[in-house]
Amino acid sequence: MPRHKLGRGVAVAGAGMSRFGLFPGQSGRDLFVEAFNAMRQSVDRGLDPRQIDAIYVGNFNSELFENQGQLAPILADWTGLLPRPATRVEDACASGGVALRQGILAIASGAYDIVLVGGVEKMSGLSIERVTDVLSTAADVLYETPAGFTFPGFYAAIATAYMTRYQATTEMLMDVTIKNHQNGAYNEKAQFQMTIRQVMEKAREQAAAKGLPAPGWKNEYDFLSDPRANPPIAAPLCLYDCSPISDGAAAVLLVAENLAKAFSSVPLYVIGSGQASDGAFYSRPDLVSLRSARAAAWEAYEMAGVGPRDIKMAEVHDCFTIAEIIASEDLGFFEPGTGVKAAQDGMTARDGRVPLNTSGGLKAKGHPVGASGVGQVVEVWKQMRAEAGGRQVSRDVNLALTHNVGGTGQTSAVHIFERR
Amino acid sequence: MPRHKLGRGVAVAGAGMSRFGLFPGQSGRDLFVEAFNAMRQSVDRGLDPRQIDAIYVGNFNSELFENQGQLAPILADWTGLLPRPATRVEDACASGGVALRQGILAIASGAYDIVLVGGVEKMSGLSIERVTDVLSTAADVLYETPAGFTFPGFYAAIATAYMTRYQATTEMLMDVTIKNHQNGAYNEKAQFQMTIRQVMEKAREQAAAKGLPAPGWKNEYDFLSDPRANPPIAAPLCLYDCSPISDGAAAVLLVAENLAKAFSSVPLYVIGSGQASDGAFYSRPDLVSLRSARAAAWEAYEMAGVGPRDIKMAEVHDCFTIAEIIASEDLGFFEPGTGVKAAQDGMTARDGRVPLNTSGGLKAKGHPVGASGVGQVVEVWKQMRAEAGGRQVSRDVNLALTHNVGGTGQTSAVHIFERR
Repeated sequence: MPRHKLGRGVAVAGAGMSRFGLFPGQSGRDLFVEAFNAMRQSVDRGLDPRQIDAIYVGNFNSELFENQGQLAPILADWTGLLPRPATRVEDACASGGVALRQGILAIASGAYDIVLVGGVEKMSGLSIERVTDVLSTAADVLYETPAGFTFPGFYAAIATAYMTRYQATTEMLMDVTIKNHQNGAYNEKAQFQMTIRQVMEKAREQAAAKGLPAPGWKNEYDFLSDPRANPPIAAPLCLYDCSPISDGAAAVLLVAENLAKAFSSVPLYVIGSGQASDGAFYSRPDLVSLRSARAAAWEAYEMAGVGPRDIKMAEVHDCFTIAEIIASEDLGFFEPGTGVKAAQDGMTARDGRVPLNTSGGLKAKGHPVGASGVGQVVEVWKQMRAEAGGRQVSRDVNLALTHNVGGTGQTSAVHIFERR
Repeated sequence: MPRHKLGRGVAVAGAGMSRFGLFPGQSGRDLFVEAFNAMRQSVDRGLDPRQIDAIYVGNFNSELFENQGQLAPILADWTGLLPRPATRVEDACASGGVALRQGILAIASGAYDIVLVGGVEKMSGLSIERVTDVLSTAADVLYETPAGFTFPGFYAAIATAYMTRYQATTEMLMDVTIKNHQNGAYNEKAQFQMTIRQVMEKAREQAAAKGLPAPGWKNEYDFLSDPRANPPIAAPLCLYDCSPISDGAAAVLLVAENLAKAFSSVPLYVIGSGQASDGAFYSRPDLVSLRSARAAAWEAYEMAGVGPRDIKMAEVHDCFTIAEIIASEDLGFFEPGTGVKAAQDGMTARDGRVPLNTSGGLKAKGHPVGASGVGQVVEVWKQMRAEAGGRQVSRDVNLALTHNVGGTGQTSAVHIFERR
């Protein structure tokens, strides 16, 4: 079993991201440089790239998305880090969170003092159908892919199982969509910066401009219940239950704890890190919880010496709305089966008991898959330093958590940060 | 700059590999299980898989070769390691060596005591042309791939530069081929287990059986100079200058130093580890040396407190014959420009000053790219424990080195092992 005790402490001394979205003119390396520069800007006391000892890059599938293997040394080159060690880490959509963990362990080992952890994915160069195929390589190619499962299909099965077990409805999932778009509306880096109400009003205007009869939507729930506005993708999941295809990158500067104040006036200390694995979807005895997420969370809480009640906000892996609900239960914020009610009651809103995905989450901020786990740390950085602008949570955030999932839960990585 | 001082020591307590070769009926995960079982057999005092805390997997391109992403948790599942953290590490053909380094740092960090490091590649499922395309994703897709460069082409340019600079000839490179096939002939896991003389005699028999005129080859050099026997691939490199397309896997058990004797009566201690990066081929000021290899070697020697003269044998990255020559210089075994003469003089043979690639090297043992860096450790394990059978070097091997290169040198990883 893991020893849970690192050789020395590690802190976050900077964090930044590119804008997430669709950027036809930009390659993954362009976006990475943008994220790197944003990170540098965030280092209160300045950073010379030559101070960086090593780089870890979370990337799911640059091979298939951009025909580029061995991406890590290219990114080291483009950010001026040569000849430093450059390592690409891959665990599908958990690549960023797992890269973060490797950076933490590498500093704890004593090998490095200062590590750049990045995440990047350039997805929009391929057709939507091809992107879906590429993402499905995260499933088991022997037992799942030939059966025709894609990721919306997997998560639709999870949603069906959850709804059946707990008498939940698709309408209840809409609260996740509405909340995350509300948060994304305040995030200038988000792919979607409109509330669902704004989306609805825009659709109404477009209908009027075309001379079509006015849609009868009374509110966001009406809008999301209209299959013309929110078509089914894989029943019961509809378009607004799904995170988008995105391009983007994120970067975090990790330093040995004793160097934290040399770089940052308000560093964040990494007090918990957990990573765990599970078999592919076909092998699971139960679909309404991710064993790997529970195991990773347990490890992170144990290392940090804190529990779910202590966490002031969290960025969780809402690749689909149902995934946020399950995450909120796997992380111990809510009892099994009650996550959906908690979302309905506003407990995960910015002024709720445990705000989730104040960045907009993967749903509204965007989901460039290899970047997502690192992008979560960027939001935690902003919230804990009270730099989140219009989406700043009302309470002081001295403890925060990130939760990043690969595939349907074959990999999970959970991290806990403290502002002292 | 790296601190060169790890928090605690790490030892190798087991090492094993699958056979390398072409195995149409076997997937990457099948080969990995074979390597894992061979590794378990090598643990003198036994290993229960449940004792393993984490797994790191070196793999270059399972996405393109097998349409399988997120490979690490699948391998954790197939070896009985769930729910342990499973991380795939990628740096092209250096993926194995870099995965080894991450395993070492992870134990040094205190997070784990016992780590499985594996490497795997299943290449032969695609056509030769397609394999060449997949390998070329390790080059720079913006500046190199569109120019038509493939890896034989890159290394042909390196060979041309070397031969011009140092007045070397293609015949001089043949000594590397002949030596590595001589070694491979004694390795029951090697893809090619025939000496070049045996290959020549077999070709002569085949000519006779077809009633063709007897080829006039007097010796191996004659044979390798005959373009019908050894056709050009990318001038000046011919078929027998190139490592083959291979399927295979390798596995190494790393443990915290204080646990070494609990698992192994003759463990190997990791006393040096180095990793460095370089820009892509197009950006290099000089082609006859790999800066990343020199930097990684320097770091490993410095950490180990030993120099090139202390090393009793080494497994080096001979993806092409010229690569072994350059490695022998970059590692400091021979002065720049003298590596080819040293090979001619037998200084790298099993009874030479510094035996190189006693396993047969990538040339004869085979080169399943993600597995190669881990496979090198398997040979070191056998030689240092005097278990290498007919290819055992004559001297006692108490210090050995591995050298693993990704792409044309965008990544290098060097490790030094001691038997106490």
